[in-house]
Amino acid sequence: MPSFWSKYSNMESKINAVQDIIKNEFTIRNTDIQEAMQSLTSSGGKQLRPAFFLLFSQFGDKNKAKPEETQLKIAASLEVLHMATLIHDDVIDDSPLRRGQVTIQSQYGKDIAVYTGDLLFTIFFKLMLETMSDTPYMAINAKIMRNILLGELDQMSLRFNQTQHIRQYLHAISGKTAALFKLASQEGAYFGGASTEIIHRSARIGHSIGMAFQILDDILDYTADPKTFNKPILEDLATGVYSLPLLLALQKNPDSFKPLLDKERNISESECRQVAQLVIDNQGVSEAREIAKCYTQKAINDIKKLPNNPSKKLLLKLTNELLKRHI
Amino acid sequence: MPSFWSKYSNMESKINAVQDIIKNEFTIRNTDIQEAMQSLTSSGGKQLRPAFFLLFSQFGDKNKAKPEETQLKIAASLEVLHMATLIHDDVIDDSPLRRGQVTIQSQYGKDIAVYTGDLLFTIFFKLMLETMSDTPYMAINAKIMRNILLGELDQMSLRFNQTQHIRQYLHAISGKTAALFKLASQEGAYFGGASTEIIHRSARIGHSIGMAFQILDDILDYTADPKTFNKPILEDLATGVYSLPLLLALQKNPDSFKPLLDKERNISESECRQVAQLVIDNQGVSEAREIAKCYTQKAINDIKKLPNNPSKKLLLKLTNELLKRHI
Repeated sequence: MPSFWSKYSNMESKINAVQDIIKNEFTIRNTDIQEAMQSLTSSGGKQLRPAFFLLFSQFGDKNKAKPEETQLKIAASLEVLHMATLIHDDVIDDSPLRRGQVTIQSQYGKDIAVYTGDLLFTIFFKLMLETMSDTPYMAINAKIMRNILLGELDQMSLRFNQTQHIRQYLHAISGKTAALFKLASQEGAYFGGASTEIIHRSARIGHSIGMAFQILDDILDYTADPKTFNKPILEDLATGVYSLPLLLALQKNPDSFKPLLDKERNISESECRQVAQLVIDNQGVSEAREIAKCYTQKAINDIKKLPNNPSKKLLLKLTNELLKRHI
Repeated sequence: MPSFWSKYSNMESKINAVQDIIKNEFTIRNTDIQEAMQSLTSSGGKQLRPAFFLLFSQFGDKNKAKPEETQLKIAASLEVLHMATLIHDDVIDDSPLRRGQVTIQSQYGKDIAVYTGDLLFTIFFKLMLETMSDTPYMAINAKIMRNILLGELDQMSLRFNQTQHIRQYLHAISGKTAALFKLASQEGAYFGGASTEIIHRSARIGHSIGMAFQILDDILDYTADPKTFNKPILEDLATGVYSLPLLLALQKNPDSFKPLLDKERNISESECRQVAQLVIDNQGVSEAREIAKCYTQKAINDIKKLPNNPSKKLLLKLTNELLKRHI
């Protein structure tokens, strides 16, 4: 049970229903894989994407909204798509842990992990077919899935590039992360029977929150507990993924970073610490936080224009928490 | 240009049109990946799946058939799905070559290869949306894609299992390989405007040909040029994938195989040669060939019941060639 939602009983019961749909779809004849997929579901995470869907589904005309069962399935489809991309990310990063659990690829091997991710794409596809084949959202989902992958590929083609622009980073995370938050919010509004205006606003809010979310995630690498602090930075630097705090600092002071970053994959742990310190000294973290704040503020301004209801309150609360700490 | 079809000018021009559709879909902003994907298209292969689609599309009522443009796109979708699974197979096998060309993962790294495969799934999905959203074939495609992956996963869960049944092998290849041949044939008939009876027959023919195709591919590992001969066997044995010739021989004489197969991943090249010799001595190859022959004969009997036309002739010719050599 995702304890994150336990304070909000209405949301919690819906999120549990979404989890049940996912677990049910994960029933396959191969019991090993079934267990692996189901353990991924119960390890939970915050289910933010289904949650955004469910929250945004509350701003429409109840008479125009799709039945609750359909809505829950669509919310599930968003989490399944997210899980598929996570599993493939883990294969690529060779990550041993995800959501505090052993990853599928480290437990079962990358072969099983690649196919399990693919299998989740087919479940995503099936859930869409069962819920939205009479709507434009089949095509929108296909496009978003494509954007997510192009975002990942963009990020890869920029690896070790010390002269990349901030807008290239923003473009990559817009595909990689914000696209799915945008989709969740927009779909929630649409299938909740909202007006075109509210659907557009919801899409915009989802995009802004997704951008803030990814930037704050990237900042966290530089501000987390010093004991675990270097691991993600080390991984990102050694694989050439330069996130916003580094890029902002690098722009200001390229010469001091160059000898360290030129080592590329051979950068040592102590050199990573030097890079991290240089990022902080050159205001990389504080400026990245300002940019995240802009996106969060933009989201809040848009949320305030939504009709008043308990979902609006909860959205404001969640978005404000984004500013203070990384949810 | 796929020289395989150059003797059949009508087919060749259609296959070229299918290739053009695929190349066009592969136009993305990331030029590296675009080149990688397009080189995969031009290296070609025999395009058997689109070809089966196109051949089976000739047995219907022209007035009920979908427009040619739609048909070519669906033919392209089959090849794109096939390519996606190939790319992910290469990631798993760490294969350096595919269709005589350097694989995407060996040239660009497994990260790019995983996402490129995923990207192909989205193109597959897009092509379906553009051609069949008003038909039951969206759901059928989703199910087949799922079966292909479950077939791969089944095969993995059977690795190093010396007591697996022949029917488990047949079940795995039915998903892994035959499902896509079946889909290609069945879809061809359906979108060519054929009767329900012909659609069912086409599905059966595709299944039989797919089964024969995979069995003959597995036999080839034991009968290919001795210079290259051991590589695939070595790979399969070392990764624990036991194909039909080995399973048939193993059933008869488990004790002589046991000490060799018990070495699992540590099997040496000379031990692989011993296994291969044992397979031949215990009629593994000859009996597997008989089983392939049954499937081919079943396909031929069904093809003979199709209406007479040039496609029927070509289908018979292709299927007969399957018996003599591996096309």
